[in-house]
Amino acid sequence: MDIQNVLNDAVKYAAERMEDGKSAAYIPELAKEDPRRLGACISMVDGRSFTAGDWDHDFTMQSISKTITLIMALEKLGEEYVFSKVGVEPTGDSFNSIVKLETRTPHPLNPMINAGAIAISSCLTGAGYSFEDYLNTVRQLCGRSTITLNENVYLSEQKAGNRNRAMAYLMENDNVLDCAAEEACDLYFKACSVNVNTRDLARYARLLANNGTDPETGRRIIDSRMTCIVKTLMITCGMYDASGYFALNVGLPAKSGVGGGIMATLEKKAGLAAYSPGLDAKGNSIGAYYVLQYLSEKLSLHYFSAEECLI
Amino acid sequence: MDIQNVLNDAVKYAAERMEDGKSAAYIPELAKEDPRRLGACISMVDGRSFTAGDWDHDFTMQSISKTITLIMALEKLGEEYVFSKVGVEPTGDSFNSIVKLETRTPHPLNPMINAGAIAISSCLTGAGYSFEDYLNTVRQLCGRSTITLNENVYLSEQKAGNRNRAMAYLMENDNVLDCAAEEACDLYFKACSVNVNTRDLARYARLLANNGTDPETGRRIIDSRMTCIVKTLMITCGMYDASGYFALNVGLPAKSGVGGGIMATLEKKAGLAAYSPGLDAKGNSIGAYYVLQYLSEKLSLHYFSAEECLI
Amino acid sequence: MDIQNVLNDAVKYAAERMEDGKSAAYIPELAKEDPRRLGACISMVDGRSFTAGDWDHDFTMQSISKTITLIMALEKLGEEYVFSKVGVEPTGDSFNSIVKLETRTPHPLNPMINAGAIAISSCLTGAGYSFEDYLNTVRQLCGRSTITLNENVYLSEQKAGNRNRAMAYLMENDNVLDCAAEEACDLYFKACSVNVNTRDLARYARLLANNGTDPETGRRIIDSRMTCIVKTLMITCGMYDASGYFALNVGLPAKSGVGGGIMATLEKKAGLAAYSPGLDAKGNSIGAYYVLQYLSEKLSLHYFSAEECLI
Amino acid sequence: MDIQNVLNDAVKYAAERMEDGKSAAYIPELAKEDPRRLGACISMVDGRSFTAGDWDHDFTMQSISKTITLIMALEKLGEEYVFSKVGVEPTGDSFNSIVKLETRTPHPLNPMINAGAIAISSCLTGAGYSFEDYLNTVRQLCGRSTITLNENVYLSEQKAGNRNRAMAYLMENDNVLDCAAEEACDLYFKACSVNVNTRDLARYARLLANNGTDPETGRRIIDSRMTCIVKTLMITCGMYDASGYFALNVGLPAKSGVGGGIMATLEKKAGLAAYSPGLDAKGNSIGAYYVLQYLSEKLSLHYFSAEECLI
Repeated sequence: MDIQNVLNDAVKYAAERMEDGKSAAYIPELAKEDPRRLGACISMVDGRSFTAGDWDHDFTMQSISKTITLIMALEKLGEEYVFSKVGVEPTGDSFNSIVKLETRTPHPLNPMINAGAIAISSCLTGAGYSFEDYLNTVRQLCGRSTITLNENVYLSEQKAGNRNRAMAYLMENDNVLDCAAEEACDLYFKACSVNVNTRDLARYARLLANNGTDPETGRRIIDSRMTCIVKTLMITCGMYDASGYFALNVGLPAKSGVGGGIMATLEKKAGLAAYSPGLDAKGNSIGAYYVLQYLSEKLSLHYFSAEECLI
Repeated sequence: MDIQNVLNDAVKYAAERMEDGKSAAYIPELAKEDPRRLGACISMVDGRSFTAGDWDHDFTMQSISKTITLIMALEKLGEEYVFSKVGVEPTGDSFNSIVKLETRTPHPLNPMINAGAIAISSCLTGAGYSFEDYLNTVRQLCGRSTITLNENVYLSEQKAGNRNRAMAYLMENDNVLDCAAEEACDLYFKACSVNVNTRDLARYARLLANNGTDPETGRRIIDSRMTCIVKTLMITCGMYDASGYFALNVGLPAKSGVGGGIMATLEKKAGLAAYSPGLDAKGNSIGAYYVLQYLSEKLSLHYFSAEECLI
Repeated sequence: MDIQNVLNDAVKYAAERMEDGKSAAYIPELAKEDPRRLGACISMVDGRSFTAGDWDHDFTMQSISKTITLIMALEKLGEEYVFSKVGVEPTGDSFNSIVKLETRTPHPLNPMINAGAIAISSCLTGAGYSFEDYLNTVRQLCGRSTITLNENVYLSEQKAGNRNRAMAYLMENDNVLDCAAEEACDLYFKACSVNVNTRDLARYARLLANNGTDPETGRRIIDSRMTCIVKTLMITCGMYDASGYFALNVGLPAKSGVGGGIMATLEKKAGLAAYSPGLDAKGNSIGAYYVLQYLSEKLSLHYFSAEECLI
Repeated sequence: MDIQNVLNDAVKYAAERMEDGKSAAYIPELAKEDPRRLGACISMVDGRSFTAGDWDHDFTMQSISKTITLIMALEKLGEEYVFSKVGVEPTGDSFNSIVKLETRTPHPLNPMINAGAIAISSCLTGAGYSFEDYLNTVRQLCGRSTITLNENVYLSEQKAGNRNRAMAYLMENDNVLDCAAEEACDLYFKACSVNVNTRDLARYARLLANNGTDPETGRRIIDSRMTCIVKTLMITCGMYDASGYFALNVGLPAKSGVGGGIMATLEKKAGLAAYSPGLDAKGNSIGAYYVLQYLSEKLSLHYFSAEECLI
């Protein structure tokens, strides 16, 4: 199978289906993005890579950062400590819901919802890690040392971040946080506002797919248990409250962000990433979804596909 | 009926029933209060007044301040504007619940829950009114010019106020507030931290009972419609989620605060206030409740009492 | 003040404001009612009575029956037992909500919501009381021996009653009921389906206003404590989740039914009833509301009116 | 690796960790089961099979039946119709929660919670399928023609089934069901009450693992897309509100039942089943969990294991 051809077709297929998408409205800086942008990249463990469309256009990671703060916290603070702060269960609510913090448990149900990622950020801040440490981690995981913060988006997040502050203060009130609410939010806002492109994300996803070892150098970058945890949480919670739908129709561990990116891992074989700023009602990129759904179908990538995987 | 004797008996009756009460634990400065303190005052429209126990001990108004910020907002901004910001319905939830702000409407269900009072505080701040204006209003309504802020309690409220901040930020996010979340909280914390005694509250309650006219000078202090609104909300929402129980067993418009005070109005006749710092699980003073319940029973004060009122 | 004239004006005033009302759609038999019907009656303790419009048109009691099953249960099983089954607090939810039975307590928060009335019906059934006993109570309280069941509405309620069954089965599961879920529902459906007119309800309301003694014969019909309980619950919970709004703008203990009736009590003076089948979004009759609101305003009936009551 | 030895060790390992388990208390017939029973079976695509402990002891399928009614509905009514009735998202609530039916959507969030399985049962009943059809399907999927209904458990379920009835009536009220609530519950209760042993479940799981083709005969029994759907839902929703925890620590599509069984699939290789009646607080068998967790760890069965799978 000619992977480049399939990827080109995937981008065409997606472009025809994404006209209803709207750039995230609640963060003004994101709302400026052109929703017709569309790009994708596949980065393979065997060293090959494939790109299409606006694959090298920068966008902010947004919620995809939740997987990276989680990895940092797991590596530096340990699995036991991290899961004393947040749970591992899907919520059935939208990513920015505050209700279960009051009605169920003051500890966020998982690290992929906003409340969970803010709690994780507080653990990192409380243990002395800074945004610089985070940024260095992103650069290492994505394999590009020029990755930087998008200052304008960061300022926009800060301004628009009152719902996240509400969650943070509620958690601070209930002694869930390891630092002050504002500090936890600040790291969270910055982590969300780091600029990447689809190749960066595809390389990061490839690292997860390869269980934490860089396939080019053979060096271990992440503990393999940690990659297992992150990929498992990506399946059950990675696509907000459309995680079940994505699991059914794409069938790859994935994480989306309201910046328009989705990254996905193909176990032991490849990392995939797609980008388009137009979102559906649940906050997932429509264009990026269709790229991945097309690739999964044509290349038999679903983890329960009856067919032989064609990558 | 000898009212002074009945009041003395009420205080004795309450003293025997309040041993389970605990001073509010979540505000450290309040937790220091001696839960055995108990006092009460009746201030009558005909000019008489009766006192018992620690009637002149200072305590902070806490949620009783919600009635005063509401009166200020009604007087200065009008009924229509105020009820565009908050509703008038009981919630069935505890006073510091955040859930309905997400699940039902971003506007607090009534001005007697924390979220509602913070929204009202934001209206006052947004319209240019300061804590000094509030303090002057309290002094006028209670008829004592020496009423002041309890700085220690205010600082303690600020420190312990993250749950209230959570509500404020959620409302700021949903464009409910007329000022920044922190400003709205600050006025709310200060308003809660004003020191009064039972005579102050009884005089304020008497003013409400007399429909806003000072019975001693004949001067109108509050518009009569506003007193009607406040007393109605005191019936349905004044005692947190024990408002129905209080209505059944005491049957007077009343408002309690976690400082240990409860004030109540006897229509056209009197204001009542009682104080004891020990609270029940819903945040109402146990001692103050029993004083008022005894008075209501012995003097036939319930608004639906079949007997002739004996005051 | 010429009460008959004011009542005539009230009906005119209401007629002009009720065009948006819709007869209850979820019970097909009720949906057939002409929403332009409008009638009212005032029955005074001094023996006078005033009527207007379709005052003698029959309609089903619906939720107004909740006050009568409550009175029966209080009289026959005692206050303590009844309030071990249901609470006395407003819910902040709509009358047919099932959520709090799972999230808060398996016991309904009060006897004026559907779940509460079904629990009360189960107490009566469990203690051996039948619909005949209920019907005789209605006849006695309303002073008309020809009051009967509306069979068609009853059958329609049964068919449309699955939401009520859901609540009943959930309560049976949690051991709240004193009889089988279906039996409790059956008494509830029948109690809702009894035909009355506004004079019947006004006479019943007068009895409550007069603390349980028939003003014409001097005979005690209901224990005075029970009338106090019912009227108190009518204030806080009688108008579904518009109880606070009604308390503010009418200020009388009242109970509405989706059949279009509202009855209200004027303490020690009168019973009032109004009827019009067109409902607002919360299930209260629009026409009946405006009749009572007009009467309250023109005759100073609000319990916190600063003016002298003119009845 | 000697699979039989590892299985024997797994059973020993589990036996030491299951003493806190309690047989399901809310179904009296299940409460009689001896919680020390423990058995397991592995059924491999290559034809081998391994058993240990009480592997041939009969127990009722309970919630494991939800996968089979789902398969029947998918096969007979089509994917589109089935997912117009129920969703595919995890709920974050316990399996018997009724709340989201009111607060989120009248359609159950997925077919693995009770409400979802009852909705699926109504589709089957409404389309003319009977319990006999269901039983024949079970026999075919498990490869044993002597599988039968446990009458005592069925009668016990019926008696204890009021919470399920509550959900069914709420869904009937909202027009979600294709038959009457009682009929839907009846098929659901019967489906839950079918007796199987671990070999039956392991063979059924092997069929799912093999994408619907019987590995012994080569005959297609289930459409491969349907097996993909069921396995995906087993990952995200198969272990009630411990699905995320199970995914992290075992990492196999699995479905548990309160009868004490858990079945799991190892893609393209094997079906696994374990049984022990003692449950944890979320309703999952403690003994069966530890058997599967041990096997996963020792044989590297997790779908994201970095090690080579040893089966």
